[in-house]
Amino acid sequence: MDPAKGLEASGEKTLQAEVKAFFDSAPPLQKSDEITQKLNQFIQRISSPSANGKVRRIVCVTSGGTTAPLEQRCVRYVDNFSSGHRGATSTEYFLKAGYGVIFLYRKRSFQPFCRSLPDDPLLECFKPTDEANIQVCEAYSEAVKRAIVDHHTAVAGGLLLKLPFNTIFEYLQMLQIIAMSMRCIGPHAMFYLAAAVSDYYVPWKDMVEHKIQSGSHLLDVKLVQVPKMLSMLRKDWAPLAFCTSFKLETDSNILLNKAGAALEKYKMHAVVANELASRKEQVVVVTSAEKVTVQRDNSQSDNDVENPLIKLLSEKHATYIEDSGR
Amino acid sequence: MDPAKGLEASGEKTLQAEVKAFFDSAPPLQKSDEITQKLNQFIQRISSPSANGKVRRIVCVTSGGTTAPLEQRCVRYVDNFSSGHRGATSTEYFLKAGYGVIFLYRKRSFQPFCRSLPDDPLLECFKPTDEANIQVCEAYSEAVKRAIVDHHTAVAGGLLLKLPFNTIFEYLQMLQIIAMSMRCIGPHAMFYLAAAVSDYYVPWKDMVEHKIQSGSHLLDVKLVQVPKMLSMLRKDWAPLAFCTSFKLETDSNILLNKAGAALEKYKMHAVVANELASRKEQVVVVTSAEKVTVQRDNSQSDNDVENPLIKLLSEKHATYIEDSGR
Repeated sequence: MDPAKGLEASGEKTLQAEVKAFFDSAPPLQKSDEITQKLNQFIQRISSPSANGKVRRIVCVTSGGTTAPLEQRCVRYVDNFSSGHRGATSTEYFLKAGYGVIFLYRKRSFQPFCRSLPDDPLLECFKPTDEANIQVCEAYSEAVKRAIVDHHTAVAGGLLLKLPFNTIFEYLQMLQIIAMSMRCIGPHAMFYLAAAVSDYYVPWKDMVEHKIQSGSHLLDVKLVQVPKMLSMLRKDWAPLAFCTSFKLETDSNILLNKAGAALEKYKMHAVVANELASRKEQVVVVTSAEKVTVQRDNSQSDNDVENPLIKLLSEKHATYIEDSGR
Repeated sequence: MDPAKGLEASGEKTLQAEVKAFFDSAPPLQKSDEITQKLNQFIQRISSPSANGKVRRIVCVTSGGTTAPLEQRCVRYVDNFSSGHRGATSTEYFLKAGYGVIFLYRKRSFQPFCRSLPDDPLLECFKPTDEANIQVCEAYSEAVKRAIVDHHTAVAGGLLLKLPFNTIFEYLQMLQIIAMSMRCIGPHAMFYLAAAVSDYYVPWKDMVEHKIQSGSHLLDVKLVQVPKMLSMLRKDWAPLAFCTSFKLETDSNILLNKAGAALEKYKMHAVVANELASRKEQVVVVTSAEKVTVQRDNSQSDNDVENPLIKLLSEKHATYIEDSGR
């Protein structure tokens, strides 16, 4: 036996065991049947070929950070910083590009069509006209209308399905359900994994039930690595889907190398490399063939970096579908 | 020298040193001059005696959870679960009771007058009437109007000052500024400390600058205890203010003992004991004289447990002002 292959097979076995342990120990996902049903309906409706025989593509956009609880009755948790801006904005451009979008998002993170609004749009964009009536403030009038109309059009038109999560357990359980549901559309599925997923977690069974007491001077929290589910997604859950993941770093010196390593290790079709400080200005799309720098175009009205980014990925996805012969 | 007093004095010295180390190592608060100015204007305007010679009372309500960053360019942090529902609801009842309220809240946590609205009120409470116009959905019509009108009335009327925070550093720096600013109104000031404040943090200078790399199988996070700032608030920052703190536990067996211990240790005037599971139904107000169980009254339209809770605390505060002879 080839020793390298032997090593890979044993690594594979370890991963499978780690993944099983993660899901076995996770608290059961609430309303999982309802979620599966919604997903199946959504995918079936969208993917039925239209009059011209074309199949609409579907992308699962993940967005926001996941939490890793430190206590079973959760008071404290480790969180990842992510406003969800990237995922929300990208969702708008995927819809424009004709995709159906499954938006798997962290509760209270940014929502599609709402990014030009202040943090608390209800209180900041409306004002009373008298004791009992309200109106939208002039400055936000257009943005508020567009947010509500465009969001409603996408949801009511059956092109946008929104599914919220909080914990790393919920996120990975739902990602698995989504991936299994999307198998039936083969290469027409895309995953756009923009969520900031915890690298470490406390296994549910190791967790204390009650709030950690604050008596001692030091708190020593030991977390273990979350199994690399990207590998599972590619190999088992939805092996024909086009997969794009993200690499965020604060240190630009290591960014591209880390993105390249992720591409190879998880067999992604593309990795979007972004640096915390400049992530709204430019990103680099790393594929096995090339590294393409994508920059926001300030001459356009839709001058988000997500505009050219989604165009590029949509093209790569189209080529991928053609190449797969479907 | 009395050995007990010697011990207390040495404990005091340690605390002072820990507090100094905490603030010295914290990143400087953004816009601190602007915050101080806003506070001084707010307090001065509200506390000038009215025609009948009465001084309006001011309460600082803290609300939501604080974060403890694990990296200087923050990607990961430890967070405390708290929706901010208690603080937001209590603020409404304090305003009704005639207080001016300084609302020190975690960004994106619940806001006063908005608790009966869904998570995402803009997208869930409004709908398009056609391509370019929107209206509020019937089911939320009254709640949306009340939220905007009542919130606007309180802010524009100069009775509600809102100050947001994210980190434990921002929270404690702002609490100190608020306390110092409220000194001038002596016993007419109240602190209602409903925020879920981190017990542990990583000192800024010990923090890694860049994102923690996820190579290793285990992540061992060592946090140190946040200095007990309640003692500082009572002794140094605003020694004449009426102070109420909160004790939240998931284990009812230890709750009242812990609340009593906090009352004594930090010399609070009242500690509100609440259990995670039943916190919206009942709380126990622990003072040196008594333990009063406060329950929500379902026969009233304002049937929040905060309604009788704020009534009780407002009475205790009034007695406290009388007793102090001002």
